[in-house]
Amino acid sequence: MKREKSKKKTLSFNLHFTNKGSQLNELIFIGLGLNDEKGITVKGLEETKTADFVFIELYTSLMPNFSLHRFETLCDKKIQIVSRRELEEENGTQILQAAKKSKTVFLVPGDPFIATTHVTLRIDAEKQGIKTRIIHGTSIMSAIISLSGLHNYKFGKTVTVPFPENFSETPYNVIAQNKEFGLHTLCLLDLKANENLFLSINHAIKMLVEIEGKKTMDVITPDTIAVGIARAGSSNPILKADFTKDLVNYDFGEPPYSLIFPGALHFMEVDSLVAFAGAPAGFRRLPK
Amino acid sequence: MKREKSKKKTLSFNLHFTNKGSQLNELIFIGLGLNDEKGITVKGLEETKTADFVFIELYTSLMPNFSLHRFETLCDKKIQIVSRRELEEENGTQILQAAKKSKTVFLVPGDPFIATTHVTLRIDAEKQGIKTRIIHGTSIMSAIISLSGLHNYKFGKTVTVPFPENFSETPYNVIAQNKEFGLHTLCLLDLKANENLFLSINHAIKMLVEIEGKKTMDVITPDTIAVGIARAGSSNPILKADFTKDLVNYDFGEPPYSLIFPGALHFMEVDSLVAFAGAPAGFRRLPK
Repeated sequence: MKREKSKKKTLSFNLHFTNKGSQLNELIFIGLGLNDEKGITVKGLEETKTADFVFIELYTSLMPNFSLHRFETLCDKKIQIVSRRELEEENGTQILQAAKKSKTVFLVPGDPFIATTHVTLRIDAEKQGIKTRIIHGTSIMSAIISLSGLHNYKFGKTVTVPFPENFSETPYNVIAQNKEFGLHTLCLLDLKANENLFLSINHAIKMLVEIEGKKTMDVITPDTIAVGIARAGSSNPILKADFTKDLVNYDFGEPPYSLIFPGALHFMEVDSLVAFAGAPAGFRRLPK
Repeated sequence: MKREKSKKKTLSFNLHFTNKGSQLNELIFIGLGLNDEKGITVKGLEETKTADFVFIELYTSLMPNFSLHRFETLCDKKIQIVSRRELEEENGTQILQAAKKSKTVFLVPGDPFIATTHVTLRIDAEKQGIKTRIIHGTSIMSAIISLSGLHNYKFGKTVTVPFPENFSETPYNVIAQNKEFGLHTLCLLDLKANENLFLSINHAIKMLVEIEGKKTMDVITPDTIAVGIARAGSSNPILKADFTKDLVNYDFGEPPYSLIFPGALHFMEVDSLVAFAGAPAGFRRLPK
């Protein structure tokens, strides 16, 4: 008991230290998937249940219906929240210290490495001789593509549309470049999940149409089509395909948000947008 | 009881018909995720447990350690396997018939609509007034990107490398086009999961290097770097980054397989390939 106490002190946080010494030390990155505490895979939940230390970060994505309390009940573990500061400025030292001693799980929204934030932590772990594993989770990327019914192999480079204060022409240029090759562009809209700040679909479209005004490359005009998606992966996702002049006023409700600018559409893709995204009949007469 | 029997006859297959009439009719597409029966999300498993009819297809992807028997035990349901013929030639009629009557689940490897095969079934269901929902699953696409440590937003268009009998220059041209913009290319390698046929990484590279011989565009030479990935999402994935002249002889073990041709690499991406994919030291001296 004394030894356990001193261990806790070294690690400077307060967690149950179960199965002491019964397992090999390792660091498992587990994807939480989308939306709520049931977005994790059965495998991911099992591994969490048998871990000695469990950490979680909730700032890289929004899981709108996730409750840490319910998740702790589901996996019967006390879970330590890790902040952006602890991960990026202190290099996740407390996670690495735990993983050096015992089986440690680090829970991340979506799939653990689709955001590159945690790649450094994994490299540091391996450098320090800590074995790492990944249990993948559902990613917002494939959920959005899947919901839209657009063909996966027709998506070009993905881009993030930043908040106005960091806005640049990059997203416009990526969309233009993809369109040149007939490809769709998936736009992730910037967010600060822990400050409850989300770039809206309407605002993102407005900023992109404004760039068009300067460039006049005919890439994002008021008559360009786009697909807005809110709450992908939840039980009430909203998809709306329309011309940007109409989409700019559409009420998508609660976040998270994303946006697709389609390239050339196959008739099957038009069918999907009409059936699942309320695309107006005008979509059937678009130039191929 | 008599009525239940006649229902079964109409549907022409033999399934337990539980909770008769207790739920709304609907068709839920659920992703099985990767590797084995524990790749499904907790939410997906719950919805399967409460369905009246459960169908599964296992031909669009290989889940190398999936056991239907173990999965049936896990969800306590009898599950009907649906063949490619039934889905593509008979338009999934039996699934739609079941979904018209009661809560019906259709289980699909990975994420349900990343392969476009099932989009038609969803459109048909909606046309017939059947409500549809999606419970997303982990997709091989994001798992591969995640495992590699390469930056997600630097991937261009994805391409499938077909078997020799259907081989064309398309994959080479897609890789060339992506490289021109400094982008990575994710290549899915063709498979016939139900015939146990898989295009190997070695064979795919050989075919691509042969095209280089004709084109001499300097896109895929023996000194081009690539990353082969086997069994993404399993407990023993293999990643190997190397020059194609060496990769062509590398033993990747069991399928499924995929392949990445990187574009311009950021030094953090090189670090990842050295740490997680055994990239040789020569990768550090590649032209940027």
